[in-house]
Amino acid sequence: MKEIGVGVIGAGTVGGGVIEILSENKTVISEKTGITLSLRHVAELKDELLQGLDLSGVTVSRDGATLIADPDVQVVCELIGGLEPARRFILEALRAGKHVVTANKMLLATHGPELVETALENGVELRFEAAVAGAVPIIKALRESLAANRIQGIYGILNGTCNYILSRMTYEGLEFEETLNQAIEQGFAETPPDLDILGHDTAHKCQILASLAYSTRIDLEAIAVEGITGITHLDVAYAREMGYIIKLLAIIRQAEDSIEARVHPALVPESHLLAAVRNEFNGIYVESDCADATLYYGRGAGRKPTASAVVGDIVDIARNKGCAPFKPFTYAREIAIRDMGLTEGRYYLRLTTKDYPGVLGQVCSTLGNHGVSIASCIQKNQSDQEPVHVVLMTHETVESHIRAALKEIDSFDFVTEATQFLRVF
Amino acid sequence: MKEIGVGVIGAGTVGGGVIEILSENKTVISEKTGITLSLRHVAELKDELLQGLDLSGVTVSRDGATLIADPDVQVVCELIGGLEPARRFILEALRAGKHVVTANKMLLATHGPELVETALENGVELRFEAAVAGAVPIIKALRESLAANRIQGIYGILNGTCNYILSRMTYEGLEFEETLNQAIEQGFAETPPDLDILGHDTAHKCQILASLAYSTRIDLEAIAVEGITGITHLDVAYAREMGYIIKLLAIIRQAEDSIEARVHPALVPESHLLAAVRNEFNGIYVESDCADATLYYGRGAGRKPTASAVVGDIVDIARNKGCAPFKPFTYAREIAIRDMGLTEGRYYLRLTTKDYPGVLGQVCSTLGNHGVSIASCIQKNQSDQEPVHVVLMTHETVESHIRAALKEIDSFDFVTEATQFLRVF
Repeated sequence: MKEIGVGVIGAGTVGGGVIEILSENKTVISEKTGITLSLRHVAELKDELLQGLDLSGVTVSRDGATLIADPDVQVVCELIGGLEPARRFILEALRAGKHVVTANKMLLATHGPELVETALENGVELRFEAAVAGAVPIIKALRESLAANRIQGIYGILNGTCNYILSRMTYEGLEFEETLNQAIEQGFAETPPDLDILGHDTAHKCQILASLAYSTRIDLEAIAVEGITGITHLDVAYAREMGYIIKLLAIIRQAEDSIEARVHPALVPESHLLAAVRNEFNGIYVESDCADATLYYGRGAGRKPTASAVVGDIVDIARNKGCAPFKPFTYAREIAIRDMGLTEGRYYLRLTTKDYPGVLGQVCSTLGNHGVSIASCIQKNQSDQEPVHVVLMTHETVESHIRAALKEIDSFDFVTEATQFLRVF
Repeated sequence: MKEIGVGVIGAGTVGGGVIEILSENKTVISEKTGITLSLRHVAELKDELLQGLDLSGVTVSRDGATLIADPDVQVVCELIGGLEPARRFILEALRAGKHVVTANKMLLATHGPELVETALENGVELRFEAAVAGAVPIIKALRESLAANRIQGIYGILNGTCNYILSRMTYEGLEFEETLNQAIEQGFAETPPDLDILGHDTAHKCQILASLAYSTRIDLEAIAVEGITGITHLDVAYAREMGYIIKLLAIIRQAEDSIEARVHPALVPESHLLAAVRNEFNGIYVESDCADATLYYGRGAGRKPTASAVVGDIVDIARNKGCAPFKPFTYAREIAIRDMGLTEGRYYLRLTTKDYPGVLGQVCSTLGNHGVSIASCIQKNQSDQEPVHVVLMTHETVESHIRAALKEIDSFDFVTEATQFLRVF
């Protein structure tokens, strides 16, 4: 099996997550891809960040340059963030013929062209799926899935902190300051939170998506940016009264011979999928000429979700270097498919019965005999109408129990039709 | 620029869409990818399907074998569907050293291993993004984005016809038969519709996703399948009363040392994103150990959406053959970013004013003078409370007009605070 040596610069939130995934999910990755990703080198200044990580057999240094020079490292992950020394490390790694994976949106939005040109000159890859919307594969969607499409519009909820604050204001009636302070206390928001709440983090991501969507130069300064600090609970409530949810959106849109690229709060109709992207989640809605509307949803930040995207990029690089063909429908292992009778869940039952006393009692005791208990019930008094419907929702149970109970129930005289039986998700 | 020769077997709905995209979006594809995709050969028995297609410079034959033998064709798209002769064409193409793209879920679910082994033996690629959920990149997500993850569960709405029927039953109170007949009349449903409504089409897709997610053998026959023919409007209505929407789901789930793989209607909580996947759209919700919850949404069928996925696969094959590195942040062209003042939309305005007669009149006439008209208004009689809020929603207008009007409005004596101004999505 082909082996790829990985180096991680920065063992903070995301870097630590990458180190954990490479250790904990090594077998899963090999099974799925035919590639062994071996962590060879970690560079980190703060010793305390290395505690608790499995670093057996891994070289640890305090300097990115040492890691880049390590001949065992083929892919360098830059996960320290910020402009410098991140930019310098990436350029050095590319010039040394190493592939680079980064999650650094600020750097890409500021120095994207320089980094990409250096990668191209050196015949290596620069990947950055994690830089926009974390685990949500929006870079891949624009770059690959929608490669045949003219992009008409991109509407993205790209900052989890802002979406979390706005969601709490919307669904709990809280004020902005109150929610922000709680988010900081609970560690959901960075301190200071300005980059998030003033919209600049979203603008960095907006710049990256606009550059990809329209293959053009996007000046970060040309993106109009408004944050969420001016949103009050009054606005959230009035908007809702009119059928809207307030979200911070990055909007990128074709407009005749120019494009729009902007970041600001917007009222999203409650029936739109983006309105259902709640709390710290991200979601991106894309309109394009062939695929039409698509949406991508998931966690935009966090240790493991962001690290998952970084490792996905490493796998892509390894595959593109031709080191392991994709083998769907082949067997890494045999797994049995479980019998439906063993599945567990809640069930919806609709009985069709004659209307006479004691029906519900008999049904419930039969279910009870099979270990099935009832969570809720609808039985409407339909006076002279027959047959009568009794609708039951069960508590969690095993499917074979329900089936055995239904077999008895459907044999009762008062049951006039086979009982409808549906599973609850 | 690198050129790739493409052959299309079958010019029906999807094949016709691929032929159109390769012609209409040729420049866009080259700009984004650095690759020219050239349609070289189309094989189709029915002459009428070729009418209206741009086939200048394209060889047209009546037989897949002739197309496969054409030395100008490097990638063969099998878009005739069904088991035979699709299987034979794909095997012949792979053995002839051609890459193959297919949208044929029934064939993959039945003969996947044979096809993949033949591709591997011949060192060529077999791609099938379009086979599951059309334009939704769920194959790519499982194969690439989530490569580092243990998949815990996949919950997919994978059949547009069923979802369309259930949506109309849910939101328009129609009965199953009625909705199905209308769908057939309008061309949304195939005739006969059995493969869709009995759940077998969803089962094919379930088999493919389960094989990928767990790198294991999945016997199509082992997947328990229930369709939607037994769902009545009564059930839809009772479920809704309890806070649920009925959807046809493919469920794939890790269960101790076995997996669940099944297709059946299920009650989905109204607050869940999957409940918001309406009408003919598809949506797949994936739970995995690192990325956590992700969702992918879009059109699962249709001429252009499915063809978009096929062309995306061709681009991937071309890129993987090393013929064109990805160049983000480089400039295919210069495009201006439009000034915010020129953007068009609807606006939410919240005025904070003293409570005296004529306020609304003055505000509306000022807006009117700037060509802005009002769609709706909330002004509550808050009796002795001051200040008073007047909330307005405008009709479509240009942002510079709103800004000019607000400048005047905010200078009125009775306006006590800068007017809140938010854009509507």
